[in-house]
Amino acid sequence: MNPVFADLPTSVFEVMSRLARETGAINLGQGFPDDPGPADIRARGAEALRDGFNQYPPMMGLPALRRAIAAHYAHHQGLILDPETEVMVTSGATEALAGALLALIEPGDEVVLFEPLYDAYLPLVRRAGGVPRIVTLRPPAFRLDAEALAEAFSARTRVVLLNNPLNPSATLFGAEDLALLAGFCQRFDAVAVCDEVWEHVVFDGRHHQSLIALPGMRERTVKIGSAGKIFSLTGWKVGFVMAEARLMRGLAKAHQYLTFTTPPNLQEAVAYGLAREDAYFTGMRRDFARARDRLAAGLGALGVTVLPSQATYFLNIDIADLGWGDDVAFCEALVRRHGVAAIPVSAFYAASPVRNLVRLCFAKADATLDTALERMSVLA
Amino acid sequence: MNPVFADLPTSVFEVMSRLARETGAINLGQGFPDDPGPADIRARGAEALRDGFNQYPPMMGLPALRRAIAAHYAHHQGLILDPETEVMVTSGATEALAGALLALIEPGDEVVLFEPLYDAYLPLVRRAGGVPRIVTLRPPAFRLDAEALAEAFSARTRVVLLNNPLNPSATLFGAEDLALLAGFCQRFDAVAVCDEVWEHVVFDGRHHQSLIALPGMRERTVKIGSAGKIFSLTGWKVGFVMAEARLMRGLAKAHQYLTFTTPPNLQEAVAYGLAREDAYFTGMRRDFARARDRLAAGLGALGVTVLPSQATYFLNIDIADLGWGDDVAFCEALVRRHGVAAIPVSAFYAASPVRNLVRLCFAKADATLDTALERMSVLA
Ligand SMILES: CSCCC(=O)C(=O)O
Ligand SMILES: CSCCC(=O)C(=O)O
Repeated sequence: MNPVFADLPTSVFEVMSRLARETGAINLGQGFPDDPGPADIRARGAEALRDGFNQYPPMMGLPALRRAIAAHYAHHQGLILDPETEVMVTSGATEALAGALLALIEPGDEVVLFEPLYDAYLPLVRRAGGVPRIVTLRPPAFRLDAEALAEAFSARTRVVLLNNPLNPSATLFGAEDLALLAGFCQRFDAVAVCDEVWEHVVFDGRHHQSLIALPGMRERTVKIGSAGKIFSLTGWKVGFVMAEARLMRGLAKAHQYLTFTTPPNLQEAVAYGLAREDAYFTGMRRDFARARDRLAAGLGALGVTVLPSQATYFLNIDIADLGWGDDVAFCEALVRRHGVAAIPVSAFYAASPVRNLVRLCFAKADATLDTALERMSVLA
Repeated sequence: MNPVFADLPTSVFEVMSRLARETGAINLGQGFPDDPGPADIRARGAEALRDGFNQYPPMMGLPALRRAIAAHYAHHQGLILDPETEVMVTSGATEALAGALLALIEPGDEVVLFEPLYDAYLPLVRRAGGVPRIVTLRPPAFRLDAEALAEAFSARTRVVLLNNPLNPSATLFGAEDLALLAGFCQRFDAVAVCDEVWEHVVFDGRHHQSLIALPGMRERTVKIGSAGKIFSLTGWKVGFVMAEARLMRGLAKAHQYLTFTTPPNLQEAVAYGLAREDAYFTGMRRDFARARDRLAAGLGALGVTVLPSQATYFLNIDIADLGWGDDVAFCEALVRRHGVAAIPVSAFYAASPVRNLVRLCFAKADATLDTALERMSVLA
């Protein structure tokens, strides 16, 4: 057994969802919405499944979907992509990420990462042969700073892996952070892999800025997106990779050998969905912001300290103020004794964990949130 | 860029399918059927997509599908699996294979492979850090022999990768081959990864025997299957991995980080399909055998030498008898000048290529095969 994988625990998201199923707890852990997702997109996928083509689609993705992705990002982010050579469809953003790291990293290359980090990042970097250089970001701002970057980058830096908006902190990197990082990427000739699966789920009139759009970054950025996150259909596992053609040639090889293709029926439905009017995206943001506010207000009324949530399906609470010193113990008690599953933020840290934050998913029906709040009232 | 992937060409299957689309050629290259797949299974998937749960399913797969897989293999192959700990669902057999190799191989481990080999095998072994030891199998029998195995195995052998039934040779390894290989695996303490995606597509009353069923192999075999191949729905990308719990723990970690999950709607439809009566599987085999015979008879009438096809969607022709010395040049001419896409068998060899065989996919409608034969009549 390769020790990189063998020695790892099951993902905290899976563990918590399993616990929630077993104990009948309300699941505010793993990030997926209560909402079943847009009925017309599901209907379109159903139709394609029943009556359409169910054999191997082109390895890079259905041409219709690649064109739809290019049109979508041109419209929403002013990003001009050639659908033939700069867009690829993958079986979820996780595959896109795994493929990018396996394609870009040579054994011994250094990879700069930022913690809190999604739990797949570090094992994938290590399994690809990369040497992780972790920059620790701290609450409440989770900002980049020049000093920490200067310490992390070196002549051996080959890849930088950024999640923006950032899960679990629910923060957005701003123009300053991105400009700073872009400068380092160029100075050290590094490729940025940008996991931007939460790009559409940003609140309060904020605007997500993509690292690939910064001067000098177009030719050195791999941008990753997710239809599952855009359309609240997290089980579909349809992801996108966007990169300049030269980089894409390598990424395509990894995809070719990791999954080869992605179900054409789901691709067709996503192509249809991506053409939606702006109103859909503003409506989605408004609905999620409302759910966020409902949960935050309820927690506030219980005397729980809530950190601001600028993006993603998540908000964080500070458990130190509740007299708890250990987020894992808190989450254990919360799910087993009080029937609410949540995620300990320390699970996102490898080097120097933050232990006073617990992440809650608010992408749920009002009734679900209200019941969770009721159950949590004993904590106050 | 990692050189293992960067320096590779696009898969010959993709290249040929693209050429076929561009030139309007009949595609007897990439292995997918003309048949749209069972209507009831597609309808079941469509229903689940429209009205069911579209969020993350459990990482190991829907419990209903894992139970269906266990029941299926108990019935068809007498293989007893614990659906909780010994069965996992992946996004296609390719992901299963990639995950198994990334989980099992440590850099420097030797991996025994057999050529002809599916084009993903070698890059995946190399990217995982494995050192390939290739055993060359030769037409027409493509059998294993003790001498070649003795040369390939060493104290550093960690994994053996076998495809049975074997694509593209369309042969089945027999009891002797398997017993021989099992002996070597045990003697050298190697894990066998068995890509058995063609297990149901075997002809003329032959019976596929799974390496995992041999004495002493249960605890050292990873068996890989494919719903896409079983149900002629190659685009669905629903694969299975079966292995003893201890091995499975490592494989699950790789899956967790490569795709995490597989669309639940497709999983539900596959679970429904796997419970089919034996009549479905015998009917499928009979239909494919009929198509095989139609193409073989037509080719025979043209004076083309056809090798026996015992399994898979494929048969091979010997182009030396047609006066050709190079299978790649032959396939180029066939698709561009005569409008039929096929696969040169040399694409499946890395060490010492066979150059006189060309693979044709017969999983097509009668009319498709007849038109292809008409177009090929100029060759005779
Ligand atoms: C793939 S499970 C994790 C889903 C998610 O994005 C999260 O909960 O952080
Ligand atoms: C994933 S494309 C290849 C399909 C196949 O099994 C073949 O044509 O050999």
